[in-house]
Amino acid sequence: MRNIKIVIEYDGTNYCGWQKQKKEDTIQERIESAISKVIKEDIEIIGSSRTDSGVHAKAFVANFKTNSKIPAEKFREAINSKLPKDITIMYSEEVREDFHARYSCEGKTYCYTILNRLQSPAIERNFVYHVKEKLDINLMQDACKYFIGTHDFKAFKSTGSSVKTSVRTITDLYIEAYKDKVKIYISANGFLYNMVRIIVGTLLMVGTKKIEPQDIKKIIEDGIRENAGKCVPAMGLCLEKVFY
Amino acid sequence: MRNIKIVIEYDGTNYCGWQKQKKEDTIQERIESAISKVIKEDIEIIGSSRTDSGVHAKAFVANFKTNSKIPAEKFREAINSKLPKDITIMYSEEVREDFHARYSCEGKTYCYTILNRLQSPAIERNFVYHVKEKLDINLMQDACKYFIGTHDFKAFKSTGSSVKTSVRTITDLYIEAYKDKVKIYISANGFLYNMVRIIVGTLLMVGTKKIEPQDIKKIIEDGIRENAGKCVPAMGLCLEKVFY
Repeated sequence: MRNIKIVIEYDGTNYCGWQKQKKEDTIQERIESAISKVIKEDIEIIGSSRTDSGVHAKAFVANFKTNSKIPAEKFREAINSKLPKDITIMYSEEVREDFHARYSCEGKTYCYTILNRLQSPAIERNFVYHVKEKLDINLMQDACKYFIGTHDFKAFKSTGSSVKTSVRTITDLYIEAYKDKVKIYISANGFLYNMVRIIVGTLLMVGTKKIEPQDIKKIIEDGIRENAGKCVPAMGLCLEKVFY
Repeated sequence: MRNIKIVIEYDGTNYCGWQKQKKEDTIQERIESAISKVIKEDIEIIGSSRTDSGVHAKAFVANFKTNSKIPAEKFREAINSKLPKDITIMYSEEVREDFHARYSCEGKTYCYTILNRLQSPAIERNFVYHVKEKLDINLMQDACKYFIGTHDFKAFKSTGSSVKTSVRTITDLYIEAYKDKVKIYISANGFLYNMVRIIVGTLLMVGTKKIEPQDIKKIIEDGIRENAGKCVPAMGLCLEKVFY
């Protein structure tokens, strides 16, 4: 069978995340249904990860197997014609039989966006987390370096996930601040459940001077969830890129 | 009576524009109703201009008269508590009795955003106009200078508006392009009906090489609506600033 890789942009506001669930509207369900309409086969797609309810993606990666003879690059337009406006296939291509969107994944980059101003956002309300208290960006930037590298991130993991190890490697973590917008970019070889959102919550403790940048080191070492920051809301989170 | 000025951000996607209309959901109607709930008086607010259905604003200005004793800066929070999430009061302040949001206005800046890529936007679908054909930004930038200055812009006006003169002064017009996003900023002492959207449509004729930058001069001189570009869709348009 042919193996087709697709790259997907979606506005996650109106979906219960990526992963198919009974009775819930999910991105996976919408895309499988669109593909099935195009190729008249029942298929199952493999996603690079789950994303939670309300999380967005600019370049989520998935793959599916098919006997269809449609040229690989034509899948994009064909699937898009069956999708709602808040989900768009960006690219489609044929890949080696052993490509697996999840198992072949070598890393991902997420971006978390904060709107740091007094007034709640009207225009960007579904895409930013609103923080009223003035953030000290320099302190937050300073704190980033303590996360980078290979660490046991068990303090930065919500319960409910069963993983063999909570050791992960953060390859990059930096902040872009412009006017009242603060964007936190984080890349790692893998992420624990809610890891990005808890790291952002911890950086916010630094930005609001509840802890100091160098306190991050001990929070990681101690590995106690309660010492880290809160899990910030989903709407500020966007999957930027998946690496293979 | 006291005269209160408010500055408003709104996502215009779900509204029939600013101006109150029978049976239609409008921003003006929502704000008047919120203010009336706060001060228990029926009031009428004066907006700096109309905006069309689907057009957004980061800093629309309006004013209203009231006998309420609420401190001016407290109106912001009080009104926001009665507004839907897609409308936010950014500031409120007391102004001189003769301040009139429309008549006192000395100019405005709009931004029109184009997404220039093959794939239709999922995430920004309500805030950008999607143009697939690759735009030549340098040519568009070159064309901007022909618009700047005092001209009769009758070629850039939709019918249905009755104004004494179609002479306006464009004080600034420039383009910011970054990755696949093209933002066109335009400032003028006043705008004719659909003027921004028709100027953008004409710049797109330049960017797609249907006309040359210097052709703008003759299109303005001849004053024939058909020679200018199409009126591009509302969703890409945002009122950025109103000058007093």
